[in-house]
Amino acid sequence: MENPNDALDDSLSSLSDTPYDSLTGYPENQAPGAPIRSGIPEHGRIPKYYAVKAQVALLIDELGEGDLLPTERDLALRYEVARETVRQALRELLLEGRLRRQGRGTVVAGAKLEQPLSLASYTEGVRRQGRTPGRHLITLERFPCPPALAAETGLERGEPVWHMERVLLADDERMGLESTYAAVARMPDLDREFTPDSSFYAYLRDRLGVTLGDVDERIETVLATPREALLIGTPPALPMLLIHRVSRDAEGRPLERVRTLYRGDRFSFTTHLGR
Amino acid sequence: MENPNDALDDSLSSLSDTPYDSLTGYPENQAPGAPIRSGIPEHGRIPKYYAVKAQVALLIDELGEGDLLPTERDLALRYEVARETVRQALRELLLEGRLRRQGRGTVVAGAKLEQPLSLASYTEGVRRQGRTPGRHLITLERFPCPPALAAETGLERGEPVWHMERVLLADDERMGLESTYAAVARMPDLDREFTPDSSFYAYLRDRLGVTLGDVDERIETVLATPREALLIGTPPALPMLLIHRVSRDAEGRPLERVRTLYRGDRFSFTTHLGR
Repeated sequence: MENPNDALDDSLSSLSDTPYDSLTGYPENQAPGAPIRSGIPEHGRIPKYYAVKAQVALLIDELGEGDLLPTERDLALRYEVARETVRQALRELLLEGRLRRQGRGTVVAGAKLEQPLSLASYTEGVRRQGRTPGRHLITLERFPCPPALAAETGLERGEPVWHMERVLLADDERMGLESTYAAVARMPDLDREFTPDSSFYAYLRDRLGVTLGDVDERIETVLATPREALLIGTPPALPMLLIHRVSRDAEGRPLERVRTLYRGDRFSFTTHLGR
Repeated sequence: MENPNDALDDSLSSLSDTPYDSLTGYPENQAPGAPIRSGIPEHGRIPKYYAVKAQVALLIDELGEGDLLPTERDLALRYEVARETVRQALRELLLEGRLRRQGRGTVVAGAKLEQPLSLASYTEGVRRQGRTPGRHLITLERFPCPPALAAETGLERGEPVWHMERVLLADDERMGLESTYAAVARMPDLDREFTPDSSFYAYLRDRLGVTLGDVDERIETVLATPREALLIGTPPALPMLLIHRVSRDAEGRPLERVRTLYRGDRFSFTTHLGR
């Protein structure tokens, strides 16, 4: 409550008067990665929660990673709005990964991890960022290959396939959920030989002599289902990045179909495109 | 109200009894792209809205693109739940792009567009899918290059840069919002020469003889701001796919910085990775 007079009306009017708001503090507020005129509709009416969000975003910029945010009650008093308005602002900042819950408080989150879109595995991507990858096995089972999986991968309809589902970890933080489908014939002893918290690609390479050839990927954003949210430990309906992968080995034979769900508040993906 | 006895309790119990629910109708319900055990937490308690969502998803599969969904009231009667429960289920299906509003009704949406991650422009990507690309100019202005933009692109701090903001269209449907930043020195007559509803890359190539060399991209999911939602015509806080692009010309000189927001309910991105 340091600024009891820093009322929301002031911030509302300053937001409407300037063409660019002060979410980022750059000259002309033209931070290249920031939303243009951060969210102010052309008609100039700003939802009240959004003005609060802009103020809290400024506060986040002043604080450092891991710093504790004032309580909802304090923020409501500071900006002279209802607690529900503060809650809506914080909810969006949480979903976007700028804040995170820690114990009973809310703290400033770190930057999103940047994972290259590449043939490399999750393991390599996480290691490259100086974090320790891990996986937690949820499901390992076999069943006859359904028609859709056969059509996508080139596997035989009805042939036995493995389904392995693992929670992805980075430094013990749950980051996503991965489902891998692969022919049992290629790796009949997967259930006995493979250590589920290790790299699947390392197992294929070192134990079976199978190397990845090429991969088709499709990226979309989806909402976590209740079960996924529970397994990954995120709020229900958190926007996730979903990557569908179909891969073939170096000889062009079907290898695996993977469905990986990454926390949208913690991950981004990078790629380099050249001629 | 064809199935007044098809009460939610039945679907709840059938969802809990079988390891895989019937969202997709595949043998063992193992559709490779579908959520595993579609959203049922291990403890077996399914949020009521999610059971309704699974039922409506089945209904969507039976209907075709553009078909009208029963009203909220009818669905509430059919599944014997409160209208608010139906509304929450429909809200997620709308955010995910399985349904869309049309006039006062709700209809089954088409599949998401698949845009390749490539050097090619939005124009080419949309054309490849048999749709007509368009753009609507929102902003064209110049300002001194801020430090962050200079650092990212290699442009000089303070040198004049263009900022061009356009709504992206496909067959007159609003699909996204694109902000392009480029040096005024490279294209001093942009404001007089360039037709804002045409392809920027075609302008660079045909008029200025500048060809794209290589590109760095970063993809993340963000929530639309109120202004963005208004410009793109989406519900506020719809999850969007945001692509940051920094590109250089064939000689390796800085060319542009682009921030493109794509509707998360209408777009997915594909890539092929090979050794």
